[in-house]
Amino acid sequence: MHNINTLQQLFTQYLQDNRVQKSPQALYEPFNYIMNIGGKRMRPVMTLLACYLFDEKVEKALPAALSVEVFHNFSLVHDDIMDAAPLRRGQPTVHDKYGLNSGILSGDVMLIFAYDYLRRSPRKEAIGGLYQTLTEVAIQVCEGQQYDIDFEQRDDVRLEEYLQMIEMKTAALLAGSLKMGAIAAGAPLSDQEHLSEFGRLTGIAFQIQDDFLDTFGDPEKVGKRVGGDIVQNKKTCLIIKALELADQDTREQLLQLYTQQPAHQLEKIATVTKIFEDLGIPDFLRNLRNDYQHRAYAHLAEVNAPKEKKDLLFGLAESLLVREM
Amino acid sequence: MHNINTLQQLFTQYLQDNRVQKSPQALYEPFNYIMNIGGKRMRPVMTLLACYLFDEKVEKALPAALSVEVFHNFSLVHDDIMDAAPLRRGQPTVHDKYGLNSGILSGDVMLIFAYDYLRRSPRKEAIGGLYQTLTEVAIQVCEGQQYDIDFEQRDDVRLEEYLQMIEMKTAALLAGSLKMGAIAAGAPLSDQEHLSEFGRLTGIAFQIQDDFLDTFGDPEKVGKRVGGDIVQNKKTCLIIKALELADQDTREQLLQLYTQQPAHQLEKIATVTKIFEDLGIPDFLRNLRNDYQHRAYAHLAEVNAPKEKKDLLFGLAESLLVREM
Repeated sequence: MHNINTLQQLFTQYLQDNRVQKSPQALYEPFNYIMNIGGKRMRPVMTLLACYLFDEKVEKALPAALSVEVFHNFSLVHDDIMDAAPLRRGQPTVHDKYGLNSGILSGDVMLIFAYDYLRRSPRKEAIGGLYQTLTEVAIQVCEGQQYDIDFEQRDDVRLEEYLQMIEMKTAALLAGSLKMGAIAAGAPLSDQEHLSEFGRLTGIAFQIQDDFLDTFGDPEKVGKRVGGDIVQNKKTCLIIKALELADQDTREQLLQLYTQQPAHQLEKIATVTKIFEDLGIPDFLRNLRNDYQHRAYAHLAEVNAPKEKKDLLFGLAESLLVREM
Repeated sequence: MHNINTLQQLFTQYLQDNRVQKSPQALYEPFNYIMNIGGKRMRPVMTLLACYLFDEKVEKALPAALSVEVFHNFSLVHDDIMDAAPLRRGQPTVHDKYGLNSGILSGDVMLIFAYDYLRRSPRKEAIGGLYQTLTEVAIQVCEGQQYDIDFEQRDDVRLEEYLQMIEMKTAALLAGSLKMGAIAAGAPLSDQEHLSEFGRLTGIAFQIQDDFLDTFGDPEKVGKRVGGDIVQNKKTCLIIKALELADQDTREQLLQLYTQQPAHQLEKIATVTKIFEDLGIPDFLRNLRNDYQHRAYAHLAEVNAPKEKKDLLFGLAESLLVREM
């Protein structure tokens, strides 16, 4: 019998056993560095869990799980360069620690290893489908990242476009992680698709919540100061929906506020938050998140697998949802 | 009946028909830009030619040929960032024209498309082997690039190490291009291997020649000023072998010369060239290149295919060799 913890341990052990121990060191040290500074291993656990729904032998999905985690970390390494981010999980980013060129090249080799790991899947009939799913996801992640960059230059992004961007940039990989686990297990196509949809919709729900909490979360529970996105003029669900709903005057006020790096940050946060509240943004986003999550659960219900196993996946999704939203 | 020209045309048409026409534009415009500023299409032609040795239907290898060419261009885009190169084939590099982030992200999506194209191969049994070969080559190319970067910081690189770096960074892709064509055609393993070795050894011979010509070539035939590598203190076969052969005094003189950005470039070129000649570097490299090329031809001779078809490949290799070296 597996649960989230045993799957997490299984993956951590596999990751450790498959550490890349090759030369040149300057190429592989950053690879191992980023893989080892942690993260919740949510995606590979989802891959193993998806396999477990259909097959007790979750080991079948370990190569796919590693592929998914290495791909995720590749995208972090390159995104951190593009965002000029100095920190990741509280540690220096790869390009900050090892230099720009190492960030680019180590990222490249990680992307290639994400493909290479798939070849180790014990069910040989699964490998073609795994390659294809990884490729489809990877293209979406790159496109989503580009839309994210593009949107920062626009003040007329519609919520629909933003949600589509989120879907590509982050939800597609959650969907793919589950689908790849199901493929590794040899699950029927319809189950693969329902799981994939469950992952996609959960991913969008989670990202809506993430945006919400940055402004309206309880700082003690969220673990960081609220209002960071407002201070940084970051394009999120909140400001995008607010610009859609606001009258002409409020819209201009918001656009004005979102061009500033204010001397008085708390004042800006308070003003913007008040506008969001007046426009009913919190309620709107609460409903939006719940709507996505309910649709996600409807797909999980359609998956043809034992209820006690599906409950593990349900529990994982529930644990991501913040109750006070 | 095919020849190099018809294969080149076939590939160019396929490339044009498979132009990526997707959004977001900012992601795919740099992709199409670098693919369209030319190059000799040597690698995809080698893929088609390798297929042709075993099968009249070279169309079987078109997806693999496109994969190889897109992969090659991906590596150019990222290498040009790492080398801070402003020009490629006489045109602005991707990062110079579209910015660093576009260079990184478009390169990433190109690498993913290199995998995606393989899926279109009509011989489905070939796809697994194609994925694996691309992966093996891609890892070598990244490792070779890292060694190249590492070597620039060292003054004790041995020729053997340098040749190994060349092999990984450039010859492995020539080997892989041929091997993938053979795999696409369903050729026996032994023929795949002989073709791969032919490509690898030819690639090394060609790179040795390339280093040689930068210093000893006829400027009119080489198409650029000689001595560029010397001016830039670039680590090549010439300086590496010279440092191995030189006595203590000459070695120190060379190391001294290779730390300078001289006011009088022509003087530096003349001094270094004279040392190379005194040490017998031109003869040594001539023999080394010929040795690699002969070993390459020995592998081609072992390939089980019609002589008139193998002669196309032989002719292609011969056309790369510069007679006056």
